[in-house]
Amino acid sequence: MSFNTFGHIFRVTTWGESHGPALGCTVDGVPPGVALSEADIQPWMDKRKPGQNKFTTQRKEADEVRILSGVFDGVTTGTPIQLMIENTDQRSKDYGDIAQAFRPGHADITYHQKYGLRDYRGGGRSSARETAARVAAGAVARAVLARMVPGLRITGYMVQMGGRGIDRGRLELAEVERNPFWCPDPVAAADWAAYLDELRLSHNSVGAVIEVVAEGVPPGLGAPLYGKLDSDLASAMMSINAVKAVEIGDGMAAASLTGVDNADEIRMGPDGPEFLSNHAGGILGGISTGQPVICRFAVKPTSSILTPRRTINASGEEIDLITKGRHDPCVGIRAVPVGEAMMACVILDHLLLDRGQTGGMRGRIG
Amino acid sequence: MSFNTFGHIFRVTTWGESHGPALGCTVDGVPPGVALSEADIQPWMDKRKPGQNKFTTQRKEADEVRILSGVFDGVTTGTPIQLMIENTDQRSKDYGDIAQAFRPGHADITYHQKYGLRDYRGGGRSSARETAARVAAGAVARAVLARMVPGLRITGYMVQMGGRGIDRGRLELAEVERNPFWCPDPVAAADWAAYLDELRLSHNSVGAVIEVVAEGVPPGLGAPLYGKLDSDLASAMMSINAVKAVEIGDGMAAASLTGVDNADEIRMGPDGPEFLSNHAGGILGGISTGQPVICRFAVKPTSSILTPRRTINASGEEIDLITKGRHDPCVGIRAVPVGEAMMACVILDHLLLDRGQTGGMRGRIG
Amino acid sequence: MSFNTFGHIFRVTTWGESHGPALGCTVDGVPPGVALSEADIQPWMDKRKPGQNKFTTQRKEADEVRILSGVFDGVTTGTPIQLMIENTDQRSKDYGDIAQAFRPGHADITYHQKYGLRDYRGGGRSSARETAARVAAGAVARAVLARMVPGLRITGYMVQMGGRGIDRGRLELAEVERNPFWCPDPVAAADWAAYLDELRLSHNSVGAVIEVVAEGVPPGLGAPLYGKLDSDLASAMMSINAVKAVEIGDGMAAASLTGVDNADEIRMGPDGPEFLSNHAGGILGGISTGQPVICRFAVKPTSSILTPRRTINASGEEIDLITKGRHDPCVGIRAVPVGEAMMACVILDHLLLDRGQTGGMRGRIG
Amino acid sequence: MSFNTFGHIFRVTTWGESHGPALGCTVDGVPPGVALSEADIQPWMDKRKPGQNKFTTQRKEADEVRILSGVFDGVTTGTPIQLMIENTDQRSKDYGDIAQAFRPGHADITYHQKYGLRDYRGGGRSSARETAARVAAGAVARAVLARMVPGLRITGYMVQMGGRGIDRGRLELAEVERNPFWCPDPVAAADWAAYLDELRLSHNSVGAVIEVVAEGVPPGLGAPLYGKLDSDLASAMMSINAVKAVEIGDGMAAASLTGVDNADEIRMGPDGPEFLSNHAGGILGGISTGQPVICRFAVKPTSSILTPRRTINASGEEIDLITKGRHDPCVGIRAVPVGEAMMACVILDHLLLDRGQTGGMRGRIG
Repeated sequence: MSFNTFGHIFRVTTWGESHGPALGCTVDGVPPGVALSEADIQPWMDKRKPGQNKFTTQRKEADEVRILSGVFDGVTTGTPIQLMIENTDQRSKDYGDIAQAFRPGHADITYHQKYGLRDYRGGGRSSARETAARVAAGAVARAVLARMVPGLRITGYMVQMGGRGIDRGRLELAEVERNPFWCPDPVAAADWAAYLDELRLSHNSVGAVIEVVAEGVPPGLGAPLYGKLDSDLASAMMSINAVKAVEIGDGMAAASLTGVDNADEIRMGPDGPEFLSNHAGGILGGISTGQPVICRFAVKPTSSILTPRRTINASGEEIDLITKGRHDPCVGIRAVPVGEAMMACVILDHLLLDRGQTGGMRGRIG
Repeated sequence: MSFNTFGHIFRVTTWGESHGPALGCTVDGVPPGVALSEADIQPWMDKRKPGQNKFTTQRKEADEVRILSGVFDGVTTGTPIQLMIENTDQRSKDYGDIAQAFRPGHADITYHQKYGLRDYRGGGRSSARETAARVAAGAVARAVLARMVPGLRITGYMVQMGGRGIDRGRLELAEVERNPFWCPDPVAAADWAAYLDELRLSHNSVGAVIEVVAEGVPPGLGAPLYGKLDSDLASAMMSINAVKAVEIGDGMAAASLTGVDNADEIRMGPDGPEFLSNHAGGILGGISTGQPVICRFAVKPTSSILTPRRTINASGEEIDLITKGRHDPCVGIRAVPVGEAMMACVILDHLLLDRGQTGGMRGRIG
Repeated sequence: MSFNTFGHIFRVTTWGESHGPALGCTVDGVPPGVALSEADIQPWMDKRKPGQNKFTTQRKEADEVRILSGVFDGVTTGTPIQLMIENTDQRSKDYGDIAQAFRPGHADITYHQKYGLRDYRGGGRSSARETAARVAAGAVARAVLARMVPGLRITGYMVQMGGRGIDRGRLELAEVERNPFWCPDPVAAADWAAYLDELRLSHNSVGAVIEVVAEGVPPGLGAPLYGKLDSDLASAMMSINAVKAVEIGDGMAAASLTGVDNADEIRMGPDGPEFLSNHAGGILGGISTGQPVICRFAVKPTSSILTPRRTINASGEEIDLITKGRHDPCVGIRAVPVGEAMMACVILDHLLLDRGQTGGMRGRIG
Repeated sequence: MSFNTFGHIFRVTTWGESHGPALGCTVDGVPPGVALSEADIQPWMDKRKPGQNKFTTQRKEADEVRILSGVFDGVTTGTPIQLMIENTDQRSKDYGDIAQAFRPGHADITYHQKYGLRDYRGGGRSSARETAARVAAGAVARAVLARMVPGLRITGYMVQMGGRGIDRGRLELAEVERNPFWCPDPVAAADWAAYLDELRLSHNSVGAVIEVVAEGVPPGLGAPLYGKLDSDLASAMMSINAVKAVEIGDGMAAASLTGVDNADEIRMGPDGPEFLSNHAGGILGGISTGQPVICRFAVKPTSSILTPRRTINASGEEIDLITKGRHDPCVGIRAVPVGEAMMACVILDHLLLDRGQTGGMRGRIG
């Protein structure tokens, strides 16, 4: 299996399995001279790490990152940065039951069909544990972005759990850190807590929708036609475990609009063009407009559940399977910091790429 | 601007503008020995070409493809295939009004901001006319797939226009070719005809949702983690003009499901595993399951409309803009064959890639 | 066969066969706003084109380039530039003899072994005719470089024909355009003329060594470790037909030097560091030093000769083969402008890449 | 700095500096099901590791490799393999003198110019220590090749030290392991020992030429035109520290041959085509012929010497510099296993790539 790398200039190669000794990533293409230490990365790891409350897997991982290369005297040198996270709380014996059985809705069967064998412990490479490496890479991207585009801010939050959406009228970003769901609506958060408790106790799980917004993105980022900012975001988000859909701006709802309604009209503000709406989600023709870049993605429910489901094993026998182990009842919760990380990586990549594409030239208006 | 290439092994590089002398693509990575002529490509071009009825742009283009390289004595040689389509019906004078003005909801402003100048005639490179090259490349992919995976079938159709969806109970693929909307539901097709006529006459446009299904895809295709079959499909579809969202299988609706409902249970059939449902859309962990691969995408309404909208021009003056010219009232219609083409390209690419990744090894079940 | 593209940001995809209707290339990644027309490209094409004297193939090709995309109102737009050259003087009937036979020392047999079939007319895709597309791309690169790095100058010349080298003491760049060999030493040029005439009449051919020098290259270009300026140059030059070796600076002779002799000592000049010698050929650790970048490559003798050689055909029969047709007795001559073109492409590519890699930061000395 | 990855399908990303805590590589694209453990890699590490005799640096590194991912139950899983080598014998204090000074002939100055700062300890990323990761990756490639192409054998040896070449008449591969120079000629080996001792004591160093031969390479490998087997080999070898030239087959000497002499004539043997000579070095038109693939490269002398040389420092002051520390008097010696590793990686990469390119089709002769 190849292609464990994403990005054009800012390139991240992740490695590692759920129950191997360690996992991590090589972050290549980081500009030189940016202050960076483990302390810049760890807070983002902590945000994603498991076992923080009853709504996520009870696996306890410190998720401590070590920088093994690419930083000297506290600053990046322009050489590849290796980030390693040791696995400390693997209970491989939990996985004996699924060593030969395929969980319905899980990658077990496709890995088997493609490779003829798989590391079944915790899902091996297909485990959401790989996203720890993405979050570490995203933290590096944030450190560079903070230096290159000071005003840029990336925020992710959950806007829907199961069929229960937030009330956009109550959306308050300050709320996001106050509940275990990264939910910007306190009323929805309370509702979700009760709902998820019930699901968990009934041996079930549920899906979710995450929204990630990047404010302060300069206009002009994107590499038409096959490295568009939105096609790269779509690829990045769809590559996250369990994601089944990606939307930019109005997303699927854009299909229901007329051209009159969808037009983001433009006026001239003191600092340049100002848009009167943002149906486009900050991207037109694959290039950033300067408005907030808005991306949403849907996460399916965790396939590892305690309710028996019909399936087969590697010998072709029909069985009923219950998946034990420590699984997230709503894997979408921990996808929030992962989505933020992917947004940071894609934007930095296009910022660097744009310098090469345009040779430094840039259009002006007015 | 770089990155006008997509694909890993089967690589397509498109070139050309709406109102230049020609456009086309270089199709690289075509295996040798496959019978191919213009006659294999032209039918797919004809399906996409404009001016076929009152519901698409009245521009008249023959869209005749010429093969300039890579085919000898009627078969592919393994060398790059150059496909050229001459533009014959450009009316550049139509575009004088938008030479300096930015259509709201259009790439005009972002191309200006990125490049400092743009070919404004018909949208230049950002025009949907570029998709003619995609359809040509898709036809080559289909010819190779027909040889390598005889049972494979790719079908696209429109499932929603504006807020009006089809009735899945009436879905009949044979209907798709019987109406100008590639609509599989004859009742919806009649409804859409009336609706679109009304919109067109009121100088408006509307969005749509397209679904593309590939049946007969072998299991095991996909390059985890950053070349997953679904992340590559997401990137491919999102790169099509005006697309704002991509779904695989249940897509956004997967967020509302519980794990019990979402599990595609598996039984053992005479030829291997059989799934009892397909919420996953034929892809688990980024790898094909052998079930139909199902992808949907939303197309926003055409931004070029005859209703005046507020905007600015390159001098920073605030203006009201009406877009004349010959535009599609529902650009989603012509996106149907484009979506099919992208699906064909992505599947062939992964079929070829898989041979290299696995070194020919493949898992068996039972 | 894939991989007809070279470059990272400035990416060139060539297509076409010796005896097809046309050949050309898609030049992607050209910054916007650079003045460009066919008149900027044609002089370089003329330098390479065949039939200019008795020392090159007698095939008569106008090698007229048409720009089909990417240029609007006389300047580049940042979109891909398609360059097409029609083939006008193909005599395919000349090639009946080698349709099934493999010329010793030629790609005939390997293309057959890889692809199972080949376009035998004029060598098909393996023909040196493909280099016309490289020269066209190189001309675009030169136009951009002239804008971005005004003092940069790229010059190629032949330094050896067969075993006969130039006298470096007589090297005079002004001589290069005064003889049909791009030879900078008039005495050697006269010697070569007599020698090559003799070889040609005796139905033989001969190899050559080409040197290409780029002056005015800014320091800091190169992407260690696997996109080094010298490893990319090595790849670029080795990809030219018939090239069997590439040297940077002292090249093979560096093996015979001691560390004391090889050290390019440094003093401080008015404008920065000044090197007292250039054994390194302007590249240290894969990054340009600011000195002239010096690259040499060896071209083997043309394998298509009128002297009979023992070989086999596709049926496995042992035969003696004489290659008729119009072939260069010293294909190295026409490789001179090709080497220049590759140098221009690689340097521009790294110039653009460097902007992304360093995020605009750059070290200063003193 | 980006681009620390090489390969198309079999992709190796190296990371780490000379004096950081560790270095290593991510090896992606390894087919599944291949037996692999540290014991398969360590012997190749031992071959390259420093401090084995007085002719290489006295730095003592165990160079113990740990496999951190991609192997389960003793076999590869198709997921990325992370190989880590801890640095144990760094003496960073040795490098105080060159913290601000630029060694002539070394990458010190270019890294400074490109990045504005550098990890000066032991050369940081530009150190030959990085080649430990290449050798580890090469060992993985060998393990896969042993499974896929049982008869394949890759052997490297030194054919020239300074101006002193081997006598090809005495070339005996069995000799290679019997002397510290990987020299296949025992007489030359004795001569080099005396010569290098003298150089070492006189505070000097010297260059070398390495030859790497791959026997048993199947015909048909190579991706024309810009992923030719020879252009990829040229890139791979030129990317090794201190390499200044790469030759395939007759290399530079091909320039002196006539077409009559250079033709590798072909007869029909019991198992297919048989060539009567191998001037081409096993590659025609960028594709393997089935003959031994022969590649040579020249390594310049170590630039870190105890003889004072004139240079400048980062403040622009002119100084005389002596480089202390533990340096190889002939870095070419340890380049032998590195060259073998690069050959193994390139061949495996093209073996995997070829499966995708040709879709499994292959030409037959006879």
